[in-house]
Amino acid sequence: MREIGVGLLGLGNVGAGVIKVLEDNAKAIEARLGTHIRVRAIAVRDVAKARLVDVDPALLTTDVESVITRDDVDIVCELMGGVTDARAAVLRVIEQKKHLVTANKALLAEHGEEVFGLAESRGVDIYYEAAVCGGVPIIRILREGLASDRIQEFYGIVNGTSNFILSTMDSTGRSFADVLAEAQTRGYAEADPSFDIGGMDAAHKLAILIMLCFGTRVDVSKIFIEGIDHVEPVDIHYAHSFGYVIKPLAIARETPDGIDARVHATMIPANWMMADVPGAKNALYVHSYALGSSMYYGAGAGMMPTAVSVVSDLIEIARNIQAGVTGALPLRSYRSLVHRPVLDIGTLRSRYYLRFAVPDRPGVLGQIMTLLGEHQVSIAQVTQDPPSENDKPVRVVVRTHEASERDVRAALVRIGELPDMPEPVRLIRIIHTAARQ
Amino acid sequence: MREIGVGLLGLGNVGAGVIKVLEDNAKAIEARLGTHIRVRAIAVRDVAKARLVDVDPALLTTDVESVITRDDVDIVCELMGGVTDARAAVLRVIEQKKHLVTANKALLAEHGEEVFGLAESRGVDIYYEAAVCGGVPIIRILREGLASDRIQEFYGIVNGTSNFILSTMDSTGRSFADVLAEAQTRGYAEADPSFDIGGMDAAHKLAILIMLCFGTRVDVSKIFIEGIDHVEPVDIHYAHSFGYVIKPLAIARETPDGIDARVHATMIPANWMMADVPGAKNALYVHSYALGSSMYYGAGAGMMPTAVSVVSDLIEIARNIQAGVTGALPLRSYRSLVHRPVLDIGTLRSRYYLRFAVPDRPGVLGQIMTLLGEHQVSIAQVTQDPPSENDKPVRVVVRTHEASERDVRAALVRIGELPDMPEPVRLIRIIHTAARQ
Repeated sequence: MREIGVGLLGLGNVGAGVIKVLEDNAKAIEARLGTHIRVRAIAVRDVAKARLVDVDPALLTTDVESVITRDDVDIVCELMGGVTDARAAVLRVIEQKKHLVTANKALLAEHGEEVFGLAESRGVDIYYEAAVCGGVPIIRILREGLASDRIQEFYGIVNGTSNFILSTMDSTGRSFADVLAEAQTRGYAEADPSFDIGGMDAAHKLAILIMLCFGTRVDVSKIFIEGIDHVEPVDIHYAHSFGYVIKPLAIARETPDGIDARVHATMIPANWMMADVPGAKNALYVHSYALGSSMYYGAGAGMMPTAVSVVSDLIEIARNIQAGVTGALPLRSYRSLVHRPVLDIGTLRSRYYLRFAVPDRPGVLGQIMTLLGEHQVSIAQVTQDPPSENDKPVRVVVRTHEASERDVRAALVRIGELPDMPEPVRLIRIIHTAARQ
Repeated sequence: MREIGVGLLGLGNVGAGVIKVLEDNAKAIEARLGTHIRVRAIAVRDVAKARLVDVDPALLTTDVESVITRDDVDIVCELMGGVTDARAAVLRVIEQKKHLVTANKALLAEHGEEVFGLAESRGVDIYYEAAVCGGVPIIRILREGLASDRIQEFYGIVNGTSNFILSTMDSTGRSFADVLAEAQTRGYAEADPSFDIGGMDAAHKLAILIMLCFGTRVDVSKIFIEGIDHVEPVDIHYAHSFGYVIKPLAIARETPDGIDARVHATMIPANWMMADVPGAKNALYVHSYALGSSMYYGAGAGMMPTAVSVVSDLIEIARNIQAGVTGALPLRSYRSLVHRPVLDIGTLRSRYYLRFAVPDRPGVLGQIMTLLGEHQVSIAQVTQDPPSENDKPVRVVVRTHEASERDVRAALVRIGELPDMPEPVRLIRIIHTAARQ
């Protein structure tokens, strides 16, 4: 049987991992497939740069187009990252009727319609297992394993950097800035970490998951995102005292009015499995109509885990090529997906944790309670620190019953207008349905 | 596009669930597939019996053969359970070149060679997602998602009855017999529970998982199994005091000498995610070369979860029929699997928890320690209850360092020969590699 030719665009971390997985598992892959998967050419920015793996220098080129158009390349792996150049390359791959494997969630989240649409019209396969939850085969699970079920909601820890930071803050009591610096040293966070800790990376993954879970396209720019940089050790301390853990969640729920889709730090019950997801790991908890709850956990990033997903995609496309069914097997046409609105965060109903620093004088606590009450925000618990000695602000922590986010925000605006309120309120949403295990 | 015809053999719990999932999700399935999946006939023992779902009585028949041989049946779902009749029916299905979906792990574990071999020679598809971990799509995950990786070892909670019993004993302090009775009342345990609590059900699933994970056939009768009925509340109490939880695990590891495959109650670190798998749920923790650790969790049994897996299989075969690639896509030929021996349990090296009841007289503890030492069993910790008032046996609990099971057993034989030793020792294996998260 003829060999399957692969072209790589990019030879960074993931590209090097792909070379390594293909080499290390060559025999096993051949046993399953009956043929070899052979890397024919690799496009890089600088052919002279040192690499994480040994590759034949003759494979390297700076000419992306030459890799895409080679006659002996059946599948192209886009591992460049970024959006602009990657989009141009990917469209070119599809136009050339080459099959595509990509790990680029930003590209798929922002240009999915164009990319999937073109691929369908040209009859080529696109696989993107590595785009969400790294090595965990979550795309296959949702696309095929739960194909007969109806997913109602899901909760993901899909950004390893954010989970590493919050987990480490939780276990050590250290500050956000301190742990972020460690994460950067250990390679868990970029020099500019805003994409990860600000929630945009998670929002891209969320948009892809929404497509798979609900058969729905959403505008990624409409997804509510809130970074984790406002979480302080004191919030983690209070979370523990309530039986909660703070986790960076990407959440989506299907509702009659649209998709409730959001990314934010969330207090979740400590006995929920998602509360135990450690370090930079990822997990997706799914609630579906027939199966009930299920959870999928593993390495969300890293050279080898991501490479495993890319190579599993290569194997599947190779299998499709051999069976003569490329382009025929996707279970759902991208163009058939319904476009649905993302709900405004104001419509959310949730429990809330609110932390205030208030002027140390009698009556302020009462004013806060009154303003919350006037906005239909019902209070479950209030704690106030003892009065300070030197007129410093006093900490007040409020846990609410379920309330409307719009009402909570309106109340917070009014509270912020009280005299001498020293800093913005900390707001963390609470998920309390521990029963959903 | 033409409809896909399905015949059901059996209309118990799972069969009723399949009817329900097909009906409830008819539109979604049609949207994905472009056609209907239609149940054409259902073989039952008694057509007059009351059913969990409404079905057209005209579909029901007691004649299995008539269902299998219908021209308009493309796929047969074997949901009869048992081995003898199911085997005959399944072989007949394959001879008729009908595709097969089955949830029958006993059949596949004991007659896999015959069943898969015949299917390959006839070019028909066999899917069996429901045979292991119910609704969790573990077969797809292992077969496709991790297709490019090399799995080194895995640990499964694959028997919901056993996990329900040990979890409930753990959270309530109640006895095995008491909780078993509750499990029977709640439908989590059969009237004759020996298949579940004795470990045979888990061994069947383990044999199937070994095939998928290692590409290896093993003789299921050679798998070491030990029931959970010897676990007492006092053992759970000691487990907690050591930072462990007792879970019913199915374990497999690939070694140069063969497959380490066994089913037994195991003490595992309380901070390991597997320790949190609640109630009758299932989970599989996998350690693989490139991905590292990953875990898959969800409902292991029940009408709807199992039905989801069956219907996902039906959808996949229907897709294969439409693409004209039935029989072409399995990634690995069953006949190409290597047969490897299961290691004798004596060769295991593990840590051990040993609980003795010893005669209340000076020197016995020393004799026990001496005999363990003479057999190279190194002791990590010993606790002895205070002397009793009325010459009752005294409890001694030993935790060992890593030792050979053969040595431990030899020492226990010698210890059992000491005068007046009142009851057999309780032995529970310990897994201490908490790092493997």
